[in-house]
Amino acid sequence: MELAKVIELKESILENNDEDAQVLRDELKEKKICLVNLMSSPGSGKTTTLLALNKYFDGRLRWGVMEADIDSSVDAQTMLDAGVPAVQLHTGGMCHLDADMTRQGVRAIEETGLDLLFLENIGNLVCPAEFDTGAALNMTILSVPEGDDKPAKYPLMYEVADLLVVNKIDALAVFDFDKERMERDVRKRNPDMKIFYISALTGEGVEELAAYLMEKTKEWNA
Amino acid sequence: MELAKVIELKESILENNDEDAQVLRDELKEKKICLVNLMSSPGSGKTTTLLALNKYFDGRLRWGVMEADIDSSVDAQTMLDAGVPAVQLHTGGMCHLDADMTRQGVRAIEETGLDLLFLENIGNLVCPAEFDTGAALNMTILSVPEGDDKPAKYPLMYEVADLLVVNKIDALAVFDFDKERMERDVRKRNPDMKIFYISALTGEGVEELAAYLMEKTKEWNA
Repeated sequence: MELAKVIELKESILENNDEDAQVLRDELKEKKICLVNLMSSPGSGKTTTLLALNKYFDGRLRWGVMEADIDSSVDAQTMLDAGVPAVQLHTGGMCHLDADMTRQGVRAIEETGLDLLFLENIGNLVCPAEFDTGAALNMTILSVPEGDDKPAKYPLMYEVADLLVVNKIDALAVFDFDKERMERDVRKRNPDMKIFYISALTGEGVEELAAYLMEKTKEWNA
Repeated sequence: MELAKVIELKESILENNDEDAQVLRDELKEKKICLVNLMSSPGSGKTTTLLALNKYFDGRLRWGVMEADIDSSVDAQTMLDAGVPAVQLHTGGMCHLDADMTRQGVRAIEETGLDLLFLENIGNLVCPAEFDTGAALNMTILSVPEGDDKPAKYPLMYEVADLLVVNKIDALAVFDFDKERMERDVRKRNPDMKIFYISALTGEGVEELAAYLMEKTKEWNA
């Protein structure tokens, strides 16, 4: 695949990100591209989860990934090696993406023809939650080793997310992780949060997550 | 212990944080307080590491902790319950602390009389690395489940840190973590990085880390 581009993102000069995000969302709706903004701590398994989903997406829908990173390019190459269209977005030190930066990525990959497009945001539970990227869906990953107290400590992330994926459940035996406490803290901020438990490594739970994302893509693109 | 205060930090109005950080560092040198800025991803074990160190610090030096968080207060209470002087700093959504915010915390705890003071920064590998807090030592934790690629992906954190603690080594058998690759990526950015391998949970390696921190405190306060 020829798409191994690195896009050096320019900082947005627009003052009203919320308005700009709505413009981008409307445009993507029109173009029938379902954009999912994927957020999490560093190392919770964003790229591995996307790779695991490919098994179910492959041949069923056209999908691609924008890999945002501060300055490395390993993730886009990983996706390309798996046959998934991907572009690398460099934020040049910035800790999040806003709608205008997301748009620069969309422009670099939309020509591929996509039903579903992931933005793998910078690994960070604080700043990305503050910026509407224009996505149809905000998805966040919490990995078991990070601990069950993250929803209490990073509340905004769990308010803005539509979908929570608890990853690395194969490590539940090694770590003290109280699912009930975690879910209670999530529901306090976000009663309607959709929650999936998966292991991107072993594949457990990934089929249900893939089915849900395909259903959401179909609804958005209808 | 009576120190269970929550300090709502005010945003800094100073323009030159680097200068301000040096002023704070000079003041702390004068007062013989060794300030350690502890940074990491969410859930890598900052608080658990501090609790594990207490076993070795207790009775040997006077130490305390400033627990920065977006708006929860669980960490300061955890330290107080263990008999360690602690204050909770609320950043009100801010993703990092600068020198002026750190000073507000120092003012709230210095009366206790301290040789060593930790600032447990917001769990975030990006933004805290950009701000000099006035600390004598920058310490970062990387936990095994986060993966060996973090130094490549969050380079600034590994440039500014003087000391890297690799935590959760009891989970090495469960996760694919290449120590050599990780160390190579660290040394590229920071040839002099001091690296410790510990499990804050089992206590492995903590004594050596405690001895090093006590030695550094002695040097700073000499």
